[in-house]
Amino acid sequence: MTGLFVKNMTEGISGTVHVDLAERSYDILIGVGLLGRLGSVLRDHGLADRRFFIVSDSNVSRLYGDALARHLSTDLDVTPIEIPEGEAQKNLSTVEGILTRLLEGGADRSAVVLALGGGVTGDVAGFAASTYMRGVSCVQCPTTLLAQVDSSVGGKTGVNHPRGKNLIGTFHQPRLVCIDLETLKTLPPRDYRCGLYEVVKYAFIRDRDFFEDLSKDLSGLLERRPDTMLRVVERCCRIKAEVTSRDETEADLRRILNFGHTFGHALEAATGYRLLTHGEAIGFGMKAALVLSRDLGKLPAQDCIRALALIDRLGSLPSIGGLPFHRIFEGMMLDKKRLRGQLRLVILNGIGAAEVVSDPGRDILERAWREGIGPSSKS
Amino acid sequence: MTGLFVKNMTEGISGTVHVDLAERSYDILIGVGLLGRLGSVLRDHGLADRRFFIVSDSNVSRLYGDALARHLSTDLDVTPIEIPEGEAQKNLSTVEGILTRLLEGGADRSAVVLALGGGVTGDVAGFAASTYMRGVSCVQCPTTLLAQVDSSVGGKTGVNHPRGKNLIGTFHQPRLVCIDLETLKTLPPRDYRCGLYEVVKYAFIRDRDFFEDLSKDLSGLLERRPDTMLRVVERCCRIKAEVTSRDETEADLRRILNFGHTFGHALEAATGYRLLTHGEAIGFGMKAALVLSRDLGKLPAQDCIRALALIDRLGSLPSIGGLPFHRIFEGMMLDKKRLRGQLRLVILNGIGAAEVVSDPGRDILERAWREGIGPSSKS
Repeated sequence: MTGLFVKNMTEGISGTVHVDLAERSYDILIGVGLLGRLGSVLRDHGLADRRFFIVSDSNVSRLYGDALARHLSTDLDVTPIEIPEGEAQKNLSTVEGILTRLLEGGADRSAVVLALGGGVTGDVAGFAASTYMRGVSCVQCPTTLLAQVDSSVGGKTGVNHPRGKNLIGTFHQPRLVCIDLETLKTLPPRDYRCGLYEVVKYAFIRDRDFFEDLSKDLSGLLERRPDTMLRVVERCCRIKAEVTSRDETEADLRRILNFGHTFGHALEAATGYRLLTHGEAIGFGMKAALVLSRDLGKLPAQDCIRALALIDRLGSLPSIGGLPFHRIFEGMMLDKKRLRGQLRLVILNGIGAAEVVSDPGRDILERAWREGIGPSSKS
Repeated sequence: MTGLFVKNMTEGISGTVHVDLAERSYDILIGVGLLGRLGSVLRDHGLADRRFFIVSDSNVSRLYGDALARHLSTDLDVTPIEIPEGEAQKNLSTVEGILTRLLEGGADRSAVVLALGGGVTGDVAGFAASTYMRGVSCVQCPTTLLAQVDSSVGGKTGVNHPRGKNLIGTFHQPRLVCIDLETLKTLPPRDYRCGLYEVVKYAFIRDRDFFEDLSKDLSGLLERRPDTMLRVVERCCRIKAEVTSRDETEADLRRILNFGHTFGHALEAATGYRLLTHGEAIGFGMKAALVLSRDLGKLPAQDCIRALALIDRLGSLPSIGGLPFHRIFEGMMLDKKRLRGQLRLVILNGIGAAEVVSDPGRDILERAWREGIGPSSKS
């Protein structure tokens, strides 16, 4: 794969993925217990003389933040910044709070914002870093599976607006991503599963071998075995790194990462962002997108069945019975409005190969949705 | 000069400066009455099918915005967004207001934010454009001399924080800069003079011939003659374009644009941002920096006298008598804090050549300040 290499590190279970973006290149380090040796990692990456501002919410701060601050402060300059917890806090006012704390702490242009937490923390801290004095370095330390395989890599930052999610933001590549698999141990089962849907998405869109591996044996992943998690997280990061380094600002190829997301985002909106986790919504969305891919004559029926089965094996999705399709369709049309009147959907051209197609028409979408989310998908 | 060409256009008094930044390259168009033919200019630049959102404050909106919206809306999709007037409104809340208006207006990723006004409007509208859906295009139409020769070119965007100016922002290059010299006619004398200080700055730091031209005959510029203004604005934009295209994010060369600004910013802060315009503060700052350059043995005494005289010929600066130097020094130390403990000053190594030096010590700074701002500078 272009611009990308994977090497093993000697210490413990660990790996490195390099993201090639010219002067904005960075490494993704993956390991068990990585937070416990983050001080030397930061020194190895030439950051020893910087000032660090650890942004985390109250929950993560209690679980990992306080210990990390103690560990780092033995020979680095560290200031913790706590932010309120939850998706509802993903707004400009939380960002302004971080910026004020950076100023109060005397952060200059060489400061490093260290985002420790899930997707919300990574997105708001990354956005704050990208706008503080027109941009300071950001180190992402994602602590959820979703953040580790998805949001911490690729440079998307942002906050929500009352009118929609992630509408305000920037592209700001991290200086470094440090993934400690140890943090997944404390993740509640539903939050862990939330990330698993994004994991299988990578297999679907870009890596048939990965799909075969997952289909053969899911147990290591479901049981959170360190060696399996390392292999899986590394593979996902490698795919995300490859795609985002070829298309940094989502002009083209990067769109394939939205497989299942057009249906999924509409479903999240239709259920008020409360009933489902993001991953679950994407689970439903991918099921509909798989059936659509088959109906458009792109995905062999047998592959469609096997892909749907893999999604089902991740766990049972909450019931969304009774939600009429027109609610989903309206959400998809809103998406369309945002893209110059062109609804674009990602479909599979076979497992491991994605492509973007134009609006196939409401009837075809509705048929795919009904079959995809229904029990028939398990046949 | 690298990455830069100047060509004359056939229609009226006009010129073009090209800013070479690879995929972020853009043109600066300069002309008399350019706003009156902006529709065809935007079409010529491949923007005919975009939606335009004209951001301007109430004053500029009345003077030029309404007419521009009428002109453009004959065959383009135009929505006006009015923002409150003045430096005090240069904050995140004004930016959020613009973002909300963009959402309400249904702006998608292909939308164009057209910033019509002075530096504040350009900075907040540019910042909004850089964060709306992770970045949409921005066309800068500066209407003050300061914005035309300085803030509209180079991609710096931002807002103030209660703790300091321009502390929150991004680098976001405009898609196009359209400078209509006609708008300078309505500019109050003091605002016009404010831009003149930045004009002579370009001559000081980068262009000795320009300095000689200005020294020989200032009348055309002071009387706002169209042909002189075109020549002068174009020359300034060419220098700013050259410097910013060599150093987009102020890692190095771009710092020379801050000639006079270390003293100047400290002076603005010490006088509460009320007594002086930005240009006047820079006028004082450059006088101190010129004396400093001479004292450090870099600038011949004769050149120092001629440069100080040119500043004085722009008009009389307000009195700042009674302001103790330690107030200025404290402001400079704050600047120092922001730059990893290193106070850096731009000095002249001869007229037309600037360089960055480290802190020469308080005594030398104080001597330069006292002589620079005092009446002895006119000797």
